[in-house]
Amino acid sequence: MRLDSGAMLGPFTLAYQTYGALNAAKSNAVLVCHALTGDQYAADDHPLTGRPGWWSTLIGPGKPIDTERYFVICPNVIGGCMGSSGPREINPETGRAWGLDFPVITIGDMVRAQALLLDALGIGQLFAVVGGSMGGMQALEWASSYPERVFAAIPIATAARHSSQNIAFHEVGRQAIMADPEWDSGGYLGSGRSPSRGLAVARMAAHITYLSEAALHRKFGRNLQDRLAITYGFDADFQVESYLRHQGSTFVDRFDANSYLYITRAMDYFDLAAEHGGQLSNAFDASPVKFLVVSFTSDWLFPTPEARAIVRALTNASASVSFVEIETDKGHDAFLLEEPELFRTISGFLDGCAEQRGLPQSRPSGAAQIDRKAQRPRRGIRTDLKLIADMIQPSTRALDVGSGDGALLEYLVHEKGVDGRGLELDPDGVHLSLAHGLAVIQGDANTDLANYADGAFDYVILSKTLQAMRDPRTVLEHLVRIGSHAVVSFENYGHWRTRLGLLLGGRAPVDPDRPYSWWESPNIHPCTITDFIGLARAMNIEIEEAVVLGPAGRIVRSARPKPSANLFAEQAVFLLRRR
Amino acid sequence: MRLDSGAMLGPFTLAYQTYGALNAAKSNAVLVCHALTGDQYAADDHPLTGRPGWWSTLIGPGKPIDTERYFVICPNVIGGCMGSSGPREINPETGRAWGLDFPVITIGDMVRAQALLLDALGIGQLFAVVGGSMGGMQALEWASSYPERVFAAIPIATAARHSSQNIAFHEVGRQAIMADPEWDSGGYLGSGRSPSRGLAVARMAAHITYLSEAALHRKFGRNLQDRLAITYGFDADFQVESYLRHQGSTFVDRFDANSYLYITRAMDYFDLAAEHGGQLSNAFDASPVKFLVVSFTSDWLFPTPEARAIVRALTNASASVSFVEIETDKGHDAFLLEEPELFRTISGFLDGCAEQRGLPQSRPSGAAQIDRKAQRPRRGIRTDLKLIADMIQPSTRALDVGSGDGALLEYLVHEKGVDGRGLELDPDGVHLSLAHGLAVIQGDANTDLANYADGAFDYVILSKTLQAMRDPRTVLEHLVRIGSHAVVSFENYGHWRTRLGLLLGGRAPVDPDRPYSWWESPNIHPCTITDFIGLARAMNIEIEEAVVLGPAGRIVRSARPKPSANLFAEQAVFLLRRR
Repeated sequence: MRLDSGAMLGPFTLAYQTYGALNAAKSNAVLVCHALTGDQYAADDHPLTGRPGWWSTLIGPGKPIDTERYFVICPNVIGGCMGSSGPREINPETGRAWGLDFPVITIGDMVRAQALLLDALGIGQLFAVVGGSMGGMQALEWASSYPERVFAAIPIATAARHSSQNIAFHEVGRQAIMADPEWDSGGYLGSGRSPSRGLAVARMAAHITYLSEAALHRKFGRNLQDRLAITYGFDADFQVESYLRHQGSTFVDRFDANSYLYITRAMDYFDLAAEHGGQLSNAFDASPVKFLVVSFTSDWLFPTPEARAIVRALTNASASVSFVEIETDKGHDAFLLEEPELFRTISGFLDGCAEQRGLPQSRPSGAAQIDRKAQRPRRGIRTDLKLIADMIQPSTRALDVGSGDGALLEYLVHEKGVDGRGLELDPDGVHLSLAHGLAVIQGDANTDLANYADGAFDYVILSKTLQAMRDPRTVLEHLVRIGSHAVVSFENYGHWRTRLGLLLGGRAPVDPDRPYSWWESPNIHPCTITDFIGLARAMNIEIEEAVVLGPAGRIVRSARPKPSANLFAEQAVFLLRRR
Repeated sequence: MRLDSGAMLGPFTLAYQTYGALNAAKSNAVLVCHALTGDQYAADDHPLTGRPGWWSTLIGPGKPIDTERYFVICPNVIGGCMGSSGPREINPETGRAWGLDFPVITIGDMVRAQALLLDALGIGQLFAVVGGSMGGMQALEWASSYPERVFAAIPIATAARHSSQNIAFHEVGRQAIMADPEWDSGGYLGSGRSPSRGLAVARMAAHITYLSEAALHRKFGRNLQDRLAITYGFDADFQVESYLRHQGSTFVDRFDANSYLYITRAMDYFDLAAEHGGQLSNAFDASPVKFLVVSFTSDWLFPTPEARAIVRALTNASASVSFVEIETDKGHDAFLLEEPELFRTISGFLDGCAEQRGLPQSRPSGAAQIDRKAQRPRRGIRTDLKLIADMIQPSTRALDVGSGDGALLEYLVHEKGVDGRGLELDPDGVHLSLAHGLAVIQGDANTDLANYADGAFDYVILSKTLQAMRDPRTVLEHLVRIGSHAVVSFENYGHWRTRLGLLLGGRAPVDPDRPYSWWESPNIHPCTITDFIGLARAMNIEIEEAVVLGPAGRIVRSARPKPSANLFAEQAVFLLRRR
């Protein structure tokens, strides 16, 4: 195999574990990619530590990556130290351990090696590739380099390029190893010595970055370790010191210092955009892969803006992408921990994909059953949503801003053949949409519309949400920028009931249909039909069509609503276009 | 001197620099406290590195800490390595370097040594004590231990206790030093060797924590160091690696590894609350010190919540406290850099304090002159603010929520002898208030009222702000919780002009006095007098007095406004009390 550096590696070894069974069509394979210090023991006990596999909570019968349904493959990366070719293994040419003679590898090299493994297993297309942190980098690399071999990809807590700060932390770790005289320029293997102290320091520094300030505070605070008072010395007075020292000392028993150098370097070198002319979206141009990107609120190693950069690039490349940001204080390590939101997100997304891929349903059991029960049968939609749907031409591309539970989106996709995408703030709405196979990004219309490219969609829909926006004008600007057309619906505050309430009752107008009091209304910028037309005019936006919904469901269509509409219409839907 | 550990240290040496001249009254001394790796060379060139003093931008003639006005003292802390007693110095009992025989010291010990220095200089009370990071810890310790010896204190980018995560980072640094065989259990001094590699790794790890992801990205990104392509090796391919290595290698030329252990340990042990029965406010009980607390938005080593915890404790201790959070991407290091907002904050606050302390004005020059010109002469206040002021009894304690430029607060303080405090979001408003000697906390009424204790004030004032709150009911709850009384004013949306606008014009009501359009109004929860009374009733709040302001300045007072008020009043002021 030719490596990115130009060096040749081969024949090489890839150590891997599998879980579950490959189906006859070979269409149910899930590749699980491990992180920096992980290995192939994802779901069974580790042979060195005896501890459960690092993703045994996620992979197994009835679990989110259900081994009764999927065939899971987890290889140790090349450069690793659990049996795959790497600096600890014997260089066949010299008969001695590779040490620093092992060629420097990249994430691309790791993935190329895995593709050869799939060839050997006779698997053409993966149903899914899943990984967190460096595993997420591999998932992105897979989707970019082998789009036809990946049906779905789930990169978690990761980035499309290693940040300056992350390179800096890796460099500290490498310098700690290299500062240890026992490292011996990488030649310690076979000498019976090893740079344990340097590697432990590297691990300690890195381990802090895997957690969060809040998690450390919650777990340890300033608690003392087995003592009642500080000792005025340099022992581990504090629990957090003792914990870190333990992390360092146990790590060196299972990991090779040179492997640590090689793998951190591979992560540092990762920069998908740079490999594609500086444009990340080029890495995914017209990708058929279905993506689910996941980040965690308290992850400061791979913070949410990194995930959003991936989502933005995928959106601009017209790829199918869903995104979920999971609220947790557990930091980067959240992807390895019991995180119910992560589990239901992955399981829902895989369910939706499996249906599209034509995989048989798994037998209903446990959590999966509950999800399935929550599925709505495909039925009609609310009158106001139907008015919107009628404005959308079939087989176009549409973005539903504030897509809720996905009802309108589902209708558009299944009844009108629309390539529909959603943007929704509420995690439950996003989850329900994912489980229905819809591509929905968790985000806030107040802030996240800026991430969409000009003209990315034929239609951008905003249904009964404008009045709740912090800055309706900017939102409207985005709608007509992102879409060739925008469809906007709202409840009319010019309705006579509202007017009469203020005139006679002397109370500020509130949503006539909902029981909000003035002090709790989310409708912070209510508007009348006249108001809305005024804004459209001020922004030089053309109203192509207006539909107003009056009492007893009376519908009036026109390009120019009459002033009386402002008095009698309860709702209005506008089809807009930038002039 | 008896140390916190119980050990005795003495006689001991404190190396220090001074700038400017002590006045005859000895009332103009400013103590500047340095951070972990700082020293006494705050404002002149460093004897080892030849570089300008670490705070030479802040201290000097005409600078924020104006040496033509103040007498600045900057001592090297005990435990340091620039001449003060510490592990590098000779132990007089043995004639050899102290090494690890030097007693472990605390922030309290550092401050006690400085107090002895002031005794020796004949200075009873400091005009101010100022410091960032560990220097801020010393400023807090000074104010807590010697409240009568400190007129004003400015703790910057600091915390009242070292967090779990910060202890963890320090522990990594110490382990890196101790892992270096050259450290020799601290006995390297005099051997001609030193744990340079370990100390460099410690510095590299720490240095990352002083910056921010954004600053690193802005400065270095993924730029390569003197090369066109990555080299597939372990050299410093990236600029950030090269920069970090440089930081490490230059640091070891000027700093002693054992000092690093001692000073990091002193920071770890710092926990003001623990020294006062677990209640931080006890550390400042009835403190006469005027505090200015400063934090930086991108500082993740001492993040803003740590500063807010100090501010909350000081508020609960009834101390005079101002707080400013400065917007910057420079991270923790911002306190050492050219940061105009920091400079104007410190200079404005010191101006306000100097006036109260009776120090002569510095001759107007440069930036200071501009500030002075911006000062308003003390004059009357707007009619609506006067209505509020009339409701406040003299010599009480009042909090003005949304205090703006401090006009009402200044009136209350100077005309009615009120002990007044402000809460204001706008940095310019906060700055103007500080320069007038007012105690104002930069914060958001939507979120920060929760930080105030029950019954902390006699009056809490909210002027023309309720309608702009995200959650007016919760804000009102806080007002009557924090104050024995609340005073709330607002513009009446029940006014006939507003009603007529919606009735006849069919446009959503906007602020009648300001030119907002419906889509841009900050008044997201407008209310009428009837609405407000309804809410007060729902919350079981007693209206003690209501004053409504009608056309042509007509003022009507009553405990129960008539329904006609809702039609004709343009503004209303309510005096409220929790029942």
